[in-house]
Amino acid sequence: MASKLLIAQGGGPTAVINQSLVGAVLEAQRHPAISAIYGARHGVQGLVKQDLIDLGRETRTHLEQVAQSPAAALGSTRDKPDQAYCQAIFKVLQTHGIGYFFYIGGNDSADTVRIVSEAAQQAGYPLCALHIPKTIDNDLMENDHTPGYPSAARFVIQAFMGADQDNLALKGVYLAVIMGRNAGFLTAAAGLAQRHPESGPHLVYLPERPFEVDRFLGEVDEVYRRLGRCMIAVSEGVRSADGQLLASTLMGDERDAHGNLQLSGSGALADYLSNTVKTRLGVKRVRGDTFGYLQRSFAGCVSSTDQREAREAGEQAVQFALAGHTAGSIALRRTGDYAVDYALVPLEAVAARTRLMPDEYLNAVGNHVSPEFKAYLRPLLGEALPDCARLRGIPVAPAG
Amino acid sequence: MASKLLIAQGGGPTAVINQSLVGAVLEAQRHPAISAIYGARHGVQGLVKQDLIDLGRETRTHLEQVAQSPAAALGSTRDKPDQAYCQAIFKVLQTHGIGYFFYIGGNDSADTVRIVSEAAQQAGYPLCALHIPKTIDNDLMENDHTPGYPSAARFVIQAFMGADQDNLALKGVYLAVIMGRNAGFLTAAAGLAQRHPESGPHLVYLPERPFEVDRFLGEVDEVYRRLGRCMIAVSEGVRSADGQLLASTLMGDERDAHGNLQLSGSGALADYLSNTVKTRLGVKRVRGDTFGYLQRSFAGCVSSTDQREAREAGEQAVQFALAGHTAGSIALRRTGDYAVDYALVPLEAVAARTRLMPDEYLNAVGNHVSPEFKAYLRPLLGEALPDCARLRGIPVAPAG
Repeated sequence: MASKLLIAQGGGPTAVINQSLVGAVLEAQRHPAISAIYGARHGVQGLVKQDLIDLGRETRTHLEQVAQSPAAALGSTRDKPDQAYCQAIFKVLQTHGIGYFFYIGGNDSADTVRIVSEAAQQAGYPLCALHIPKTIDNDLMENDHTPGYPSAARFVIQAFMGADQDNLALKGVYLAVIMGRNAGFLTAAAGLAQRHPESGPHLVYLPERPFEVDRFLGEVDEVYRRLGRCMIAVSEGVRSADGQLLASTLMGDERDAHGNLQLSGSGALADYLSNTVKTRLGVKRVRGDTFGYLQRSFAGCVSSTDQREAREAGEQAVQFALAGHTAGSIALRRTGDYAVDYALVPLEAVAARTRLMPDEYLNAVGNHVSPEFKAYLRPLLGEALPDCARLRGIPVAPAG
Repeated sequence: MASKLLIAQGGGPTAVINQSLVGAVLEAQRHPAISAIYGARHGVQGLVKQDLIDLGRETRTHLEQVAQSPAAALGSTRDKPDQAYCQAIFKVLQTHGIGYFFYIGGNDSADTVRIVSEAAQQAGYPLCALHIPKTIDNDLMENDHTPGYPSAARFVIQAFMGADQDNLALKGVYLAVIMGRNAGFLTAAAGLAQRHPESGPHLVYLPERPFEVDRFLGEVDEVYRRLGRCMIAVSEGVRSADGQLLASTLMGDERDAHGNLQLSGSGALADYLSNTVKTRLGVKRVRGDTFGYLQRSFAGCVSSTDQREAREAGEQAVQFALAGHTAGSIALRRTGDYAVDYALVPLEAVAARTRLMPDEYLNAVGNHVSPEFKAYLRPLLGEALPDCARLRGIPVAPAG
């Protein structure tokens, strides 16, 4: 019997999450087993409020435009539903006769799908509940990589390529704080900006290794003395050996002085590190940027590989649903060099768990990425990166 | 008699300053009156140190790659030469038998060219000294716009387009601090991100109008109550009615608490404004980004119109030089809608002067741009901007 599909999006927006949405919608419309396609506005929040739209009434042309657009077209939410919330979600699905529920999101969204699926099973209600992966953090278990990450990585690389040229023109110390509270994948991407033998970033600091300010200063000093400049990529999630986030330590300090300064969407960490380099190393020109929201939603910086894979992840959800699966998470698997395939894995394997950078993706001392990481990321980036050439610079002999 | 050309680049890098460099080199090589082409590394700094390279020994293929690359390929400098420094520059030009001196830069670079030109005249040395314009600030007198500005404007627009979609997905107040200490042109560009009737930015604050925190809060509050969200573009150069930069006031405060925190390349202004909105308006989700160095050197975000014009500005310098002019600044003039032409204007008209936003480019209350500004900027942006579509969203009737 034909049944309805409901789709929602959760967590932080990405440059390609709408590809997954549109992939699922257009694939579902090819199959008569799916009688209608609804979207919930702002994820589970809209779902429980019955704030639903009829995605069958969007034209294909317009859906293709939406697919090309960054951020979550259905709206998103940071709500992490508990058991009672998930029961309310299940009731709405039941009331509307929804037989297929797809939630596009990260590990929290996978956990929501898991609880809703259990509620349906306990009630004896036939529901196919699938999780479609997305996160710029690239921190989902079972996945080679996650849709959204390659495009954010491309932004970080292009930003560092340009910043490195800028820093060559006007020398000094430059550092950028990059998203990723637990996993360093996005910060690590900066490593692929190294086009030339002495290109930055020269140092890369990730949450996977303890961050010590004194050691950091020593490493910056060494590069600065050698090259007359130093480019640094720092994860917002760097922490001390005892697990304390450097950024939240600063937030504490800032609270005393300024009131309730919050950390995310703030320049506190970059400012603190810049100031420390300036005062303790005596470097005159130090600049700190925080890539902020641009790295996840900048319009017009996207990996074509990421677009294609995000699209197919949405399509695969429909295929797994129609093949009779009732619960699971779509996972991207690398097959060969480079091709991908899509598996359906148990929700428990992804839900509320975090994948970190494998040891072999960092260098031995833990202050940069390894060649293995570069080989891993390179095929995900799509079209060729833009030019960042330098003059060869044949000197003119001094005169006079 | 044939003579040598020396080229240098000064001030902040841009996405297309290398187009002007390559335009001048390739155009000069077509004319036998120019016997050699040298480049000075790091502007006037390399010039006085005779740190020169032979640009005639760069291949055309490689020069074309350099032209596509952001930031200043010759290196730049913040040095503002005084009379003695300019005499030293003149001596090097004389020693190397340089007959043509081109300096690509902003209004300070124009002033350097002016002083060097006077020194040559006083010494009876035949020198053609020309200034080629570039600045993301768009603040040069005599110019309709300056090479570098349209590409930086495009970055700001694409950033705001994406941030607006992000803010629609996860609502709140978002503000971004944008470069431009005296002129608001770059911040004003954010206004062109308004694709849809309720797109951000909803408020735009420029250095050309006094900034009052209380009025700012009132305006943010009004938008937030009406739309449930508010997107704000703020120039780093906003100042009080008595001309005091808000950012430097904060720098003073920060100094007491944190040591020598500097302002440029810092998130202090965005953090202060975010915190103020959060505490005084009681808005829960407030995010502040500082676009920082990305807006002037991000690799791969460029206006094709800007590239072409920057290229031709370099070529025009050669044409004016060979036509017998001995001093001046290349100025971009708009002719028709849309075409440009290039004039040679006196150095005094450009040197050390600043052009601000004309009144008609701001709205009446001074918190946004006018339709006239949008009409002015739109043809400068090159290819079509990326998609930022929204679902049409036909509601599903509630059930149960």
